[in-house]
Amino acid sequence: MAKNTNIRISLPAVCFVWQIAMIILFGVFIRYDEESDTHWIEHRRKKNISTNLENDFYYRYPSFQDVHVMIFVGFGFLMTFLKRYSFGGVGFNFLIAAFGIQWALLMQGWFHHLDEHDWKIKIGVENLINADFCVASCLIAYGACLGKVSPVQLMVLTLFGVTLFAVEEYIILELLHAKDAGGSMVIHTFGAYYGLTISWVLYRPLLSQSKHLQGSVYHSDVFAMIGTLFLWMYWPSFNSAIADHGDGQHRAVINTYLALASSVLTTFAISSISQNNGKLDMVHIQNATLAGGVAMGTASEFMITPYGSLIVGFCSGIVSTFGYLFLTPFMEKTLKIQDTCGIHNLHAMPGVIGGIVGAITAASASESVYGQEGLINTFDFKDAVANRTVNIQGGYQAAALFVAIAFGLVGGALVGGILKLPIWGDPADVNCFDDDVYWEVPEEDENFLSRHPNMNHATSIPDVYQRSNV
Amino acid sequence: MAKNTNIRISLPAVCFVWQIAMIILFGVFIRYDEESDTHWIEHRRKKNISTNLENDFYYRYPSFQDVHVMIFVGFGFLMTFLKRYSFGGVGFNFLIAAFGIQWALLMQGWFHHLDEHDWKIKIGVENLINADFCVASCLIAYGACLGKVSPVQLMVLTLFGVTLFAVEEYIILELLHAKDAGGSMVIHTFGAYYGLTISWVLYRPLLSQSKHLQGSVYHSDVFAMIGTLFLWMYWPSFNSAIADHGDGQHRAVINTYLALASSVLTTFAISSISQNNGKLDMVHIQNATLAGGVAMGTASEFMITPYGSLIVGFCSGIVSTFGYLFLTPFMEKTLKIQDTCGIHNLHAMPGVIGGIVGAITAASASESVYGQEGLINTFDFKDAVANRTVNIQGGYQAAALFVAIAFGLVGGALVGGILKLPIWGDPADVNCFDDDVYWEVPEEDENFLSRHPNMNHATSIPDVYQRSNV
Amino acid sequence: MAKNTNIRISLPAVCFVWQIAMIILFGVFIRYDEESDTHWIEHRRKKNISTNLENDFYYRYPSFQDVHVMIFVGFGFLMTFLKRYSFGGVGFNFLIAAFGIQWALLMQGWFHHLDEHDWKIKIGVENLINADFCVASCLIAYGACLGKVSPVQLMVLTLFGVTLFAVEEYIILELLHAKDAGGSMVIHTFGAYYGLTISWVLYRPLLSQSKHLQGSVYHSDVFAMIGTLFLWMYWPSFNSAIADHGDGQHRAVINTYLALASSVLTTFAISSISQNNGKLDMVHIQNATLAGGVAMGTASEFMITPYGSLIVGFCSGIVSTFGYLFLTPFMEKTLKIQDTCGIHNLHAMPGVIGGIVGAITAASASESVYGQEGLINTFDFKDAVANRTVNIQGGYQAAALFVAIAFGLVGGALVGGILKLPIWGDPADVNCFDDDVYWEVPEEDENFLSRHPNMNHATSIPDVYQRSNV
Repeated sequence: MAKNTNIRISLPAVCFVWQIAMIILFGVFIRYDEESDTHWIEHRRKKNISTNLENDFYYRYPSFQDVHVMIFVGFGFLMTFLKRYSFGGVGFNFLIAAFGIQWALLMQGWFHHLDEHDWKIKIGVENLINADFCVASCLIAYGACLGKVSPVQLMVLTLFGVTLFAVEEYIILELLHAKDAGGSMVIHTFGAYYGLTISWVLYRPLLSQSKHLQGSVYHSDVFAMIGTLFLWMYWPSFNSAIADHGDGQHRAVINTYLALASSVLTTFAISSISQNNGKLDMVHIQNATLAGGVAMGTASEFMITPYGSLIVGFCSGIVSTFGYLFLTPFMEKTLKIQDTCGIHNLHAMPGVIGGIVGAITAASASESVYGQEGLINTFDFKDAVANRTVNIQGGYQAAALFVAIAFGLVGGALVGGILKLPIWGDPADVNCFDDDVYWEVPEEDENFLSRHPNMNHATSIPDVYQRSNV
Repeated sequence: MAKNTNIRISLPAVCFVWQIAMIILFGVFIRYDEESDTHWIEHRRKKNISTNLENDFYYRYPSFQDVHVMIFVGFGFLMTFLKRYSFGGVGFNFLIAAFGIQWALLMQGWFHHLDEHDWKIKIGVENLINADFCVASCLIAYGACLGKVSPVQLMVLTLFGVTLFAVEEYIILELLHAKDAGGSMVIHTFGAYYGLTISWVLYRPLLSQSKHLQGSVYHSDVFAMIGTLFLWMYWPSFNSAIADHGDGQHRAVINTYLALASSVLTTFAISSISQNNGKLDMVHIQNATLAGGVAMGTASEFMITPYGSLIVGFCSGIVSTFGYLFLTPFMEKTLKIQDTCGIHNLHAMPGVIGGIVGAITAASASESVYGQEGLINTFDFKDAVANRTVNIQGGYQAAALFVAIAFGLVGGALVGGILKLPIWGDPADVNCFDDDVYWEVPEEDENFLSRHPNMNHATSIPDVYQRSNV
Repeated sequence: MAKNTNIRISLPAVCFVWQIAMIILFGVFIRYDEESDTHWIEHRRKKNISTNLENDFYYRYPSFQDVHVMIFVGFGFLMTFLKRYSFGGVGFNFLIAAFGIQWALLMQGWFHHLDEHDWKIKIGVENLINADFCVASCLIAYGACLGKVSPVQLMVLTLFGVTLFAVEEYIILELLHAKDAGGSMVIHTFGAYYGLTISWVLYRPLLSQSKHLQGSVYHSDVFAMIGTLFLWMYWPSFNSAIADHGDGQHRAVINTYLALASSVLTTFAISSISQNNGKLDMVHIQNATLAGGVAMGTASEFMITPYGSLIVGFCSGIVSTFGYLFLTPFMEKTLKIQDTCGIHNLHAMPGVIGGIVGAITAASASESVYGQEGLINTFDFKDAVANRTVNIQGGYQAAALFVAIAFGLVGGALVGGILKLPIWGDPADVNCFDDDVYWEVPEEDENFLSRHPNMNHATSIPDVYQRSNV
């Protein structure tokens, strides 16, 4: 059954119309905030701020750039591992992230930052970080669909994903007043279940027709390690980027650094023990080593202690690697969920672990450990929630986890239904995981061999055919 | 017509002599500035500076490192896209940038930072950023010549390029008092026309003899995406690195971030609409997505508004992609300009757009938008230009654009003439785009196949030849 | 002689047991320091600290992230240059660094940061940097053994390497009170001699059996350039990361930036002059260009002057490239030291140069250059060493260099003896440099050609075999 994968009208139309919509909506709603506006100098004088360094820019900009690298190089290159889908992996990631951050600035702005006086959204560096965070959830969802959807479908996935994210985030952070600095729940759990449900709705029974393209080749695995390492190295920045100034950011970095280190060792251990001769599997090393960062997202700011962080990383590395070994094949066969990148193992399960760890750590917080002021600062027990106890906070943290899962499942089902419409130019089963469908792929260099004398002889018979064919 | 590409004398001679010249000139002229000298503590006391954080290092160092990555990994890997010129792309970029930053510290120092009392140049982190900026213009010029010149020619191109840059920059920033924080005019426009003119002078009518090497292969395109993404992600740092402390840097980041996001969408749109079946072209994605960053260079510090930034990115992405589609072939056929990387599309046109946008934005600035102090701070209307109006500033901005173009054209013609001398070891037309000329290229592994049983059988006939040949 | 390379028990056992040991030891010993603890706000009030920015986090975090990238991407990708050992290069680097940083936090904590009151180690961002530094020495040692050892051996190498490092560092920095901000002696000299001695003990007389895998292929050389460039670009952060706040960090960056630039030019010069036709060798460009950073490690904080830095880079680039040309073959043949990555040229010799330069620069320091306070601050002439003169300091610097060499040689001999035991699963000589031993390596794609019509014909004869073989 041949499919029409021509996107010559649909992709440009979506890109143009939506970008023009962004311009109009930005024109109506988005302005500089007081720290990025030229009136900053007057604002400084009014608020008696002694130095330009107190501009939030200097607290957050290094972390922002690290997060930015994670979004575009980290997620992008992690998805280059397939032998013939590296263009689509890094290229479509680029496209939807570039669209998503604009839409996220609007959606998150409307829900969190709308100025009541002039109905404008005032943006600064923290908004840019949050937009990157929001987009991360859609890139996670892309991981489940990698190679099986068209770029137009990905744009739709992102449009709705960002929208759902903004609502879910509003409920979790504002209404439930849960804490989730690194987004174990808000970003990872939501994004993973959103993507998995979409993949379930879009189930392809004959996907094995493109089985020969579902693996990696040697160099594509090395490319994917670029993505892995930039995610791994900068995850401390991810979990600390919007944490409290001072000890909050500092502690989030330490906790994440340790959890990540720990999950590397358990990933290597489980990967080795599961194979003949103890040979390591690149899929595990590329992905499960990151589970510690995901699982430390919620509790990164808390006084979870350094050894607590090591334990979180220890467990999540094990769970994630076991997922790749047993759950992914089971889900494909039994649950009809085809999860290209294994986001259930890297984001869903470690995200849920992170939510649970966050709830427990919050519920067991105490003034003796945090100090009176420290406890109030860390959990923002003020204004409407000034009288909340840590036990109740733990309950709200757990509730937040369910909100994230529910938004992922329901949202994914709805959006999956939309994406199932036969108008989006998705590839036939036999053409999945193939860049040839959406990209001008360069011809392999048939003259290449002729420049190498040793090989020239070796392949002299085919060479005759080759020449006559050019 | 065989050419002598032996550079065994010329390249070492140039490297040694020029590096020794650098040491002598640095010995005579370059010293630490008051913020990098051990007397900083006394300086702090004298100036009543309360904290080490007020050392400019802490304002600028994160941006500096991002810019540094753009220069060496960004430009370097962007030029690895050719199938057999990746060594030359990233390697010669490395060489000329490492030389150029030293020469730039001297040239920019003499023009901008020469201490009148002791005739020394005092350097700090801002000088390092400016040296990286200066070198960027030469790397842009390299893009037009990629694969067609020898490393010795590139060193000459850089020596004169940096020299011309310093004079041009002095005229634009000091004499005309134009603003150009991200260098749309000073860096991109100048660098592009400098390189294009050189390429025009060095026109090779028989370049099609190496046509088989002018394309990419699958993995070289993925390598080039490393360059693209690091340029794209860190461009906000580029345009804000030497902007004003506080709101200046903050606003430049927001504007650049938005312009870049916008140009990604229009690049994908035009790339798709221009091809059969809407297939995307990697050349466009690798390059035109960056046009928004180039075009936001001059106005990055201005109150161009967030939606204004989106519009700039929108237009420059379109213009740049159309350039790759129509202008590059036209220029090669009609104007006899061979532009390997398409710098006319990525740097020249977006650079000119950036200059025009800057002039218009400056001319339409007002106290009602900027605030009285904000207007003075943003445009540095003090001392000799204390009475300049925004309209006049707009005129000077436009004049600056012409200075940049003129320096590029005239400088390129002169340097192109020098590079045409038959003494620089440049390759014959048939050997262009081939690393074999200047690099020890590793033999492809003829034993490689024998380790893979499945393929062993498959290629058993050639294998016989192969073995007997080792 | 076949060897048992099955690590299915040993690698998981080592990973699990050691990671659990880390958790227990962290539980007993490691706590947040006062800047990463929720009591920071009370600490601020007590110490009258006016702003969160004075938290050491904001001084050091950008440098920390740069160093982190050097450890995992820099060292990791630099070791991907072999044609069939890229997985092992970047993957085992990842494993041992993730273990090493945990063990380093403990070892360095016990020696440098043990709180006398509660016997706890209080960690903050500076400890994370120091842990990365410590691990760097083990990664350097890995470079000598690349391709010839099992991951279990590497874990043992790291366990003892970190232990030896912590003692050596304690002697050099605390007892001798030598200065070594960028670790020319402590990190590079020690790490290199440690690795070289291990490699000498593990000498393989029949290593030529795997000679066909000892080279690179085209794309593996490009991957290695990713490592080179990230090391090169972020080396200023490496040498300044734990330097003094303010002018110390600022000056270390300038000195390192210049030394690195200078060594690029001399590396290209020597590489070109040594080959037929002046062709450049990628091995030199990938490695010797970094020698300036190594050699500037000790003196980076000193007033070595900008031109002094250029001279250091000039010489170390030459020495390092000559090492690759002449010393590595000599060492292999005559001294029986097989040094896969040439760490003797990149780390040992430039490290010794750095130690000597540091001693000379310290001995020639003067109040007229540094200022009275500057001299005291730079060399920490206070408390027990308040009366030390610069001449005596120079002597202690020289003594420190001998300590580093001695620890490397003696430690390497001991650890080499342990690693020689036939229980670690190391590969046979014929299987060295082959990822197949420890990794599930993806099958090359035999269906790949069939998707390319032009090549299909070309290889049509083998294709028949191929199909029947699947």
